[in-house]
Order: sequence, then C-alpha cells, then structure tokens
Amino acid sequence: MEISREADTLRALYQNWTDQMVENPDLTIANLRSMFDEWGQPALEPENVSYKSDHIGGVEAIWALPVGADTSRVIVYTHGGGFAVGSADSHRKMAGHLAKVLGVTSVILHYRRAPEHPFPAQIEDAVAAYTALLDKGFKARNILTAGDSAGGNLAIASVLKFRELGLPLPGAVIAYSPWLDMAMRGETLETNAETDALVGKPILEAMAGMFLGEGTDQLNPLANPLENDFTGYPPLYINAGGAETLRSDAERLHEKAKAQGVNVTLSIVEGMQHVFPALSGRAPEANEELGRIAAWYQAL
Amino acid sequence: MEISREADTLRALYQNWTDQMVENPDLTIANLRSMFDEWGQPALEPENVSYKSDHIGGVEAIWALPVGADTSRVIVYTHGGGFAVGSADSHRKMAGHLAKVLGVTSVILHYRRAPEHPFPAQIEDAVAAYTALLDKGFKARNILTAGDSAGGNLAIASVLKFRELGLPLPGAVIAYSPWLDMAMRGETLETNAETDALVGKPILEAMAGMFLGEGTDQLNPLANPLENDFTGYPPLYINAGGAETLRSDAERLHEKAKAQGVNVTLSIVEGMQHVFPALSGRAPEANEELGRIAAWYQAL
Repeated sequence: MEISREADTLRALYQNWTDQMVENPDLTIANLRSMFDEWGQPALEPENVSYKSDHIGGVEAIWALPVGADTSRVIVYTHGGGFAVGSADSHRKMAGHLAKVLGVTSVILHYRRAPEHPFPAQIEDAVAAYTALLDKGFKARNILTAGDSAGGNLAIASVLKFRELGLPLPGAVIAYSPWLDMAMRGETLETNAETDALVGKPILEAMAGMFLGEGTDQLNPLANPLENDFTGYPPLYINAGGAETLRSDAERLHEKAKAQGVNVTLSIVEGMQHVFPALSGRAPEANEELGRIAAWYQAL
Repeated sequence: MEISREADTLRALYQNWTDQMVENPDLTIANLRSMFDEWGQPALEPENVSYKSDHIGGVEAIWALPVGADTSRVIVYTHGGGFAVGSADSHRKMAGHLAKVLGVTSVILHYRRAPEHPFPAQIEDAVAAYTALLDKGFKARNILTAGDSAGGNLAIASVLKFRELGLPLPGAVIAYSPWLDMAMRGETLETNAETDALVGKPILEAMAGMFLGEGTDQLNPLANPLENDFTGYPPLYINAGGAETLRSDAERLHEKAKAQGVNVTLSIVEGMQHVFPALSGRAPEANEELGRIAAWYQAL
C-alpha cells in the first residue's frame, strides 16, 4: 500500500516510540506521558484558530476557537493514549483541525488518567463537562463528542452514559480509530500485527489493566462499548487506518450500530496507521478524511 | 522569599525533571527532549492568538499571530533548552504571550539542536531566518530578537553575528534568563545552588559539551557573548529569577552592556526560578514581568 511521504512521519514516530519502549522496558508512567505528548508533533498548526485555557465542569480543558466558527456549536474532544497518557495539549492541533473543518468550536478535555484514576473517572469527567455545557446553554443537538483511540472509546461510551442518566443526547459522535474491546477479540490484532507500528496486544493489555483496575470487567458495557446497545444512538462517524491492529474495533462497532438502526458511517483508509488524523494539515490522507467528515456533518 | 502558588508550579516541574534525571542518569537525548517539552505546560494559552506552521529561511518555525497585532513587526524567538532540547512547540505559548503584550507577531524557530548540530548551527539558523525576514520586506528596526536560557544567548549572539555580517540590526533584544558564560564563572552558580530547582554545573557542563563540540572554545565570543563587545548594540532587556544559578549571567551582561553605552534594562524578580516567563498567563510574577516589558518596548 503506497502512502504519502508525509503520512509516513506518523509511522516513523510510532516506530520510534516502540523502539524506545523495547529498549527500555522500565520507562515510568511519567516517561511514557512525556513521550506520548510527541503525538502533537505531526499535525501542523491549523491556521486562524485561537485557544483558551479553561476548566469546564471542574475538568481542565483547552478551547479551540476557529475564526468564524458557529460558537453555539461545540465538540467535546477526548484525547487518546490508552486512558493513561496523552493530553489536551498533545491533541490540541488535531481537535483544532476538526473544529475548523466543521465550523464549530471544541473543548479538549484533560480528563483524569489511569492508573491514578481508573474507570469510570474518565467517563465521569466527560459527563461533568457535558452537563456544564448544557448548563451554559448549549443545546444538546449542537454538541458533538469526538475522540481518538481510548478517547474515541470515551466519545462513544460517554454518550451511552448520558442516555443512562436520562440526559438529552448530542447531535453526533466522531471516533478516530476507537479502541473499544478491552477483551482484545478483534481479528486485526493478529492480521495487522506486522503493519501496525505502535499498537499490539502487550501495550493494550498493559493499558487495559491500568484502566480497568481491580474492579472492572473487560466486558463492562461502558468500558467496552461493543457490549452495549446502540438503539437510538446519535449519528456516528467512525474511521480507522487500514494497516492498524484496531481496525476490527471500528468495523465491529460499525456492524453492530448499523444492525441496531444507527445512522453510522465507516471510513477505512488503506495503509494508514492508528489515529492517522494526527497528521491533520500535513498529510493528504488526513486532510481528505477531514473533508469527508465535514461533508458528512453538513449532510446530517 | 514568598512566591505565588501558581509560580511554584514551575519549581515543582523543574524539581520533577531533576528527580527523573537523578533517578535515571541514562536518559537518552530523546527521553530528555520529550521531558523538556513539558516546559510548555505551565503557561496558559494566550487568548486571541492563532498559529501557523511554516519554514522561514529553511528553518522550521511556528508563527504566533495575535489578533490585532502590527504585522509589520515580528519577534524572532529562540527557545531555551541548552541548545539541545526544547522546541518551537514547547515555547509556543510563552512566545505567544510576549508577542501579544508587545502587539506584534512572532516567529518561533525550531533551530537545529546539539549534539547532532553543534555551534554555530544555531546562529546560522537565526541568521537564515533573519535575512529571510529582511528579504520579505520586514524593516530591521521592526524586528526584535528574543529568547530564553540558551535561546536568550542565541537572541543576543545572533545580533552580534548580524553586526559581523554587516546586516542592519534589529530594533530591540529581549533575553529571559540568558545562559551566556560557557566557562561557568558566575558566582550565583554557587550561591543559588540550593534554591535553583533545575540548573546547576553538571547539567550546564553536559550541555556546553554538546553545544561546543570538539572545536569551539568556552570563550568564543559568539558562543559566550560575555566575551564580545556590545558597543552600538540595540536596546536590550534582560531578566532573571532571583533564585536561579544563572542570575549572574544576566547581571554581568547588564554591567558590561551598560559600561559600553547600550540602552539596557535588567529585571531581577526575587524568588523566581529559571525562565519564569514560562508561567505566562498563570502566575502574577510572570504577568507583571510581561507588563514591564511591554512598557519598556512602548517607550523605545
């Protein structure tokens, strides 16, 4: 699969992380957090977007404010990093690009991370931010949830939690390469093991262990949304890279949601690595994907 | 010395880095670079500033573009990190705050770093960016150079190099906690050793070794601006934290420049750590310093 030279920078970054983790299996969680914050490097700065540091519902956050955006609309963005690493800052540009192409604002949550804060701290933070936005006067239908990898899981699972709490549901949900199945049953975990430069069973098992802690089952339907019911769920856009081990998570969610009557769209981009919109602004594959998402959102 | 609770976050970050380096003396340069990129964490996002990824004179860079800024004026910002770590990204918010209070734009250079690129690669990159700005039509008097720590050295030394090359000189120079003396002769290296949470002789010697490489003397007047002549130098603003080991570098530069007839201002803020404007937007001590710099610039 031919990919652009620009897209290869993400594969190279992931391979570099993998090499560092193999070379030094004793990297502390602090070391891993600073390493994974390099996730912000591949994306270029989205032009004409400013930012504001804030707290929303008590959760530390960064607003991304594109010039000319509809300020009555907002994406609640939850970053990836296995619930344990990554940050609002590492995903600032990625969320800024998404907000800009959709013509809306975004609030990027620096939610509490595992292992210090296992499940369901992350979903609690998403609920706190969402209810704070409703309290500020945002209409539920003008809110989107979005996220990548573990943050894609949160973008999806938090909406299932909103439903459980009887809250009005957001207008749409977007998940980049969501990591959903804490029981690791996806077949691409095996079939794409050679082509994925970062994600494999060992790293997922380590991160699931920190996230679930002692008390939560791998099949808990809020930790593992594949075990939940999507009837009545908002319009859902899911993507994944063709070369990644978590491709099956995206595909299985698509199948399930479709069978349960959800307006769901799946975009698999061949040759791409995990969370390829990390290349927003840099690689044509990511920019074209942003264009598809914008068209999808406008047509809702 | 009483400092604000907010300012203490910078001391705590530095102490955390120091602890990590003591715990693991084998951290690679890649590990150190990801750790030092946490330098961007203390500053809050400056509001109403947007960014643009670019190359200027072949040097990777980020533009910080405050809303309403005078776009005919620009700060060439060189980040700190011992010439070896730190990045345009880690200093984006810091430079954004400075540009905003001055009402100008800034271009933050991701210059080549040691040890892969020893002296004078960093100054060459600053020269390339500066001449590219002149070629774009910026008037020299509307350009400032600014930087912190090793980047403060570069902001100062690059102007000495511009003079050597016969280029018109920038309108002003700003140095936050500049690290100037590669021969480590400052007395606060001893007297503030207990109060500085990050910078001491061992780390400076390691970084000077990478920067100077085999071929450059500790007293080379472009690597060690204290050995240079400041006659005819542009207006110069220097600050330092009262608690830091490099306080003497700022003080010695101030004395020398003053004796040589430069319009030079020194601001020592008691109790503060190295590069305390890393707290821009968060701590009153940094915000007040930005106010003083803005007043100084307006009065030029």
